[in-house]
Amino acid sequence: MNGAESLVRSLLDAGVDTCFANPGTSEMHFVAALDHVPGMRCVLGLFEGVVTGAADGYARMTDKPAATLLHCGPGLANGLANLHNARRAHAPVLNLIGDQATHQAPLDPPLTADTMAFAQGVSVWTRRATSADRVAADAMEGLRAAIEGPGVASLILPSDTCWDEGGVVAPALPRGPRPQADAKALEVAERMLRNGRRTALMLAGAALREAPLELASRIAQATGAVVMAPTQVKRVQLGQGRLMPAKVPYAIDPALEMMAQFDQIILIGAKAPVQFFAYPGKPGVPYRADTVIHTVTRPGMDDLHALDVLAEALGVGAALPLPAAPDYGPISGAITAEAFAAGVAQLLPENAILVDEGVSFGRAVYPALAHAKPHDYLQLTGGAIGDGIPMATGAAVACPDRRVVDIQADGSGLYTVQGLWTQAREALNVTTVVLSNQRYAILEGELKAVGATQGKTATDMLTLDRPSIDWPSIAKGFGVPATRVEDMESFAKVFEAVNAEDGPHVIEVMI
Amino acid sequence: MNGAESLVRSLLDAGVDTCFANPGTSEMHFVAALDHVPGMRCVLGLFEGVVTGAADGYARMTDKPAATLLHCGPGLANGLANLHNARRAHAPVLNLIGDQATHQAPLDPPLTADTMAFAQGVSVWTRRATSADRVAADAMEGLRAAIEGPGVASLILPSDTCWDEGGVVAPALPRGPRPQADAKALEVAERMLRNGRRTALMLAGAALREAPLELASRIAQATGAVVMAPTQVKRVQLGQGRLMPAKVPYAIDPALEMMAQFDQIILIGAKAPVQFFAYPGKPGVPYRADTVIHTVTRPGMDDLHALDVLAEALGVGAALPLPAAPDYGPISGAITAEAFAAGVAQLLPENAILVDEGVSFGRAVYPALAHAKPHDYLQLTGGAIGDGIPMATGAAVACPDRRVVDIQADGSGLYTVQGLWTQAREALNVTTVVLSNQRYAILEGELKAVGATQGKTATDMLTLDRPSIDWPSIAKGFGVPATRVEDMESFAKVFEAVNAEDGPHVIEVMI
Repeated sequence: MNGAESLVRSLLDAGVDTCFANPGTSEMHFVAALDHVPGMRCVLGLFEGVVTGAADGYARMTDKPAATLLHCGPGLANGLANLHNARRAHAPVLNLIGDQATHQAPLDPPLTADTMAFAQGVSVWTRRATSADRVAADAMEGLRAAIEGPGVASLILPSDTCWDEGGVVAPALPRGPRPQADAKALEVAERMLRNGRRTALMLAGAALREAPLELASRIAQATGAVVMAPTQVKRVQLGQGRLMPAKVPYAIDPALEMMAQFDQIILIGAKAPVQFFAYPGKPGVPYRADTVIHTVTRPGMDDLHALDVLAEALGVGAALPLPAAPDYGPISGAITAEAFAAGVAQLLPENAILVDEGVSFGRAVYPALAHAKPHDYLQLTGGAIGDGIPMATGAAVACPDRRVVDIQADGSGLYTVQGLWTQAREALNVTTVVLSNQRYAILEGELKAVGATQGKTATDMLTLDRPSIDWPSIAKGFGVPATRVEDMESFAKVFEAVNAEDGPHVIEVMI
Repeated sequence: MNGAESLVRSLLDAGVDTCFANPGTSEMHFVAALDHVPGMRCVLGLFEGVVTGAADGYARMTDKPAATLLHCGPGLANGLANLHNARRAHAPVLNLIGDQATHQAPLDPPLTADTMAFAQGVSVWTRRATSADRVAADAMEGLRAAIEGPGVASLILPSDTCWDEGGVVAPALPRGPRPQADAKALEVAERMLRNGRRTALMLAGAALREAPLELASRIAQATGAVVMAPTQVKRVQLGQGRLMPAKVPYAIDPALEMMAQFDQIILIGAKAPVQFFAYPGKPGVPYRADTVIHTVTRPGMDDLHALDVLAEALGVGAALPLPAAPDYGPISGAITAEAFAAGVAQLLPENAILVDEGVSFGRAVYPALAHAKPHDYLQLTGGAIGDGIPMATGAAVACPDRRVVDIQADGSGLYTVQGLWTQAREALNVTTVVLSNQRYAILEGELKAVGATQGKTATDMLTLDRPSIDWPSIAKGFGVPATRVEDMESFAKVFEAVNAEDGPHVIEVMI
C-alpha cells in the first residue's frame, strides 16, 4: 500500500468522508487512491476559493471536518481567503496540500513556493509529511488538531510521501472532552450577573446554537443582561421560539452607541469585540474604556456546561414566551432593504440554512429573521469577501435535505462565482439571491467616512455598472437557471417557487 | 499633505502612472488621494488575481512596473498566484497593500492576517511602512527594488501611514546600469562554443527579445550551438525573420530525449532547466548528469552585452536568411491541435501580442508561430494557472494600439474569468480564444503517467462537462461579446473579423 492509499483509508476510518478538491499534478497519486478506495465523496471546485469556502460551510453544519485537496503553493494561495474565514470561525477543516517531491523541492521548479508559510497563516496546525509510512499518522494528528482547535489543520504532502510504498493505516487519535470553564471564572461571572450593573452576555461559536442560546436567554431574563453576538457569526440558530442575540454593528458609530451602555461584558466562547478597521481619532474597540471584560470560556471550550452552571447558580426560571411574529402585510412594491428583509423572513422555508453575505443592502436581513421559521444563519467571519457562494455550496453538501438560501452581495459574489458550477454539478438545493446594486456600496460609505468627496477616479474603483454585470447569463454559463426580478411581488413568487424545487437557482434582485 | 497624497505624487513623478486596483476599506485614503491628484490611470479588477496578473502582463510589455492596490491580508492572498507567476518571470511589479492601522493591528480585528508572510513569499523586497513622512520614500525604495530585481516589491501600508499628515514627496532613486557578465565567465563561454561539443545556448528573460535573439542565432549558426528557451517564457519576440528558440518540453520523456543530446549548456539570463514535477524513478532535471552547466548572466544582468561580446569574440557573421513561411493551405475542416495552431499562425495580426495559456491542446501553437507575422509571445511562467485572461488584460492596457490574442485553456481560464469584465470596461483589444475541451486534459495525462487507470471518482475530479460550461453566456454576463465555433472555417472567419474590430471578444473553440 502506498502512502496515498494509507491516507485515504485512515481518513475514511476516522469518519472523514467528504473531500472538496481542485487537484493538480503533484496530487495525482492521491487522486488515484481516492479512485481506488471507495467511500470518499469528492466534490470538485473550479477554483480553490470555492473548495475552501465549501469546506468551511460543511464544517459549520456538520461540526466535523471535510478534507480539502489543494495543489501546491499557488493552489493553496488561491484558497487562503476562505481559509482565513474558516480560521476566524474556528471551523474544523483538514487541508491536504500537494507539494513537490522531497528530492525535487531543492531544485526549485517553477511552481515551488513557500507552501508552509502560506499554510501557517491560516492554520492551528501545519506539518510537512516526510515519509509514506508516517503520512497517515500525520493526517490523524492534523485531524485531531482541527477538531480540538477547532480550526484549520494543514498537512503538506510531498508527492513521494504519497507514491512511496510502505503506507500504514493509522487509527483516529483519542480526543478528550471539551475543556470546561474554571470554577473561579464561573463564580466571578455569577457575581457580575447579580451586581446590578449593565451587562452584555456575549456569545460566539458553539454558544450560539439553540440549547446554549436558550439558557442564555433565561439568564438574561432573570438578570437584565443583554444577550449579544459578534458582528459576524459562525452559525446562529434563529427563528420563531428562539432568542435572537443582538449583533455588534459593523459601522463604528452605531457600534460605539450600542456598546456604551455596558458596564461589563461576559464572554462565552467569544472574544471581546474589536472594530473591523480603525478610523482617525476613533477608538479601536466599541466598548467604554472602563467596561469590565470577563472571559468564562474561550472558543473550543464547553459553553453549554458554563451556561448550565450559571443558570443553576442564578436559579433562573423557564424562558418567558417570546413575542409572536408580526402580522406581515402583502409582499409588494419596490425592493427596499426593509421590504426585502421582511420578504425573506416571511418566505424562508422551515429548517433552511441562510448564508448571509449581503454586506450593505443585506444588513436589514438579520434583525428581520427573528420571526422567520426556525433556521440556521451563517456568515463570513473573517471579512474576506467571496465566502457566500462557496459556503452555501458546502452547507448544501452537508445537509442535502435542507434548503440553503445565500443572500449574496454582487461585488462579493463575483469573487468566487465559479462555485455556481459546483452547485449545478452536485444538484445542490441552493437559492442564491444576488443583491445587484452594481457597486461596492460599502466602500462608497467608507470613502465618505474618511471625509473625501467621490470624484471620477474613485467612482471608477467603486462601481460595477460599466458594463453592467448580467448575473442570469453568468449563472446560465455555469449551468444554474436564473431569474431577474425588479419588484417585491416577482421576488416573492420566484423565491417561493425555486425554494420548493430541487437543485440550484440564482435570483438577481435589482436594487 | 497626508501620506497617501505624498505616495501618489511620488509614484507619478517616478513614472508609475498605471494602478491595477481592487481596494478595500483600509485603502480608502489612498483611493481618495488617487481621486484628488490627477494622472494615475486606475484599472479595476473584480478579483485580486485579475489585478496582479494584469500588472504582470503590463510589466512584460512596458518593462516598467505598474502599481497594484490590494486589500489587506486575504485581499493580497487572492492575488498571490499571479504574483507567483510575475516572480518567476522576473516581472517588475510594485504592490501597495493596505493593512490595519498601526495601533489597531495588535487588537487582531477579524480581517487581520499575516500580510507580511504572504507578501514575502512572492517578493524580492517587502516592507511595512511606519509613518506618513517616510511612506513615499519607502515606495521609492520598493520601486527601485522592483526595477533592479527585476521582480515583485511589496509595500504594506497601515492605514494611518496614509491618513496622517506630514507626507513628504520623495524622488525616484538613482539606478545603476544592469550588471555585466564577468569577463572570465565570457571567456569560458567562448571556449565552450569553440570546443566542438554539443551545446545549448539557453536564453530567458530579456535575452529573448529581438536584438539578443538575433545575436544568439548568429552565434548558433557559427558554432553549431542550439538556441533554447525554458519550458515557459516571460516574453519572446517571434515570427517571420526571427529565430524561434526551441523550448524544453513540459512532459518529462520528451524533455529527457531533447536534452540528452547536450554536452554543455550555456545560460544567458536563464536558470538550468528543471522538471516541473518529479516522477517516481525519473530524474529531476532533463539534462544528463555529465552535462556541463555554465552561467554567463543571471536574470537582471545585461544579456545583450554578453551576447555582443561573445559574437565579437567568435567573429560570427551575419545571420543566414531564415526559411520562408510554408505554403499554408486553406483553413478548413475539423479543429485538430495542428490545424488550430496553423490557423492561428496564419491569421495572427502583425505586431500582435499572443498570450499562451493553451496548456494541453494549445501545445502545438508555439512551434507553428515561427512563420507568423512578427509578434510578442507571453506565457505563464510560474505554472500557476489563471494568468491568461489577466495577463492579456494588462498587456492590452500597456499597448492599446496592438491586438492581444489570448489562447486560453478552459479549465485555467475559469480561475480568473472575472478579468473579461475589465476588458469590457476598458474597451481593450483582446481576443480570448477559449479551447473548450471541458476537462483538465493535462491532469488526465498526468494520472496516466502515474500508472493509474481512471475510474469514476478520478473522472469526476478531472472533467468539466457535467454540466457543460457555456463560455458565450459567461462572457456576455461580463459584457464581452462571444461566439462559439465548431470547425476551422468558422474559427478563421470569426478570428479575422474580431481581430480587426475594436474591443474584446471571446471565441469558444469546441475541441
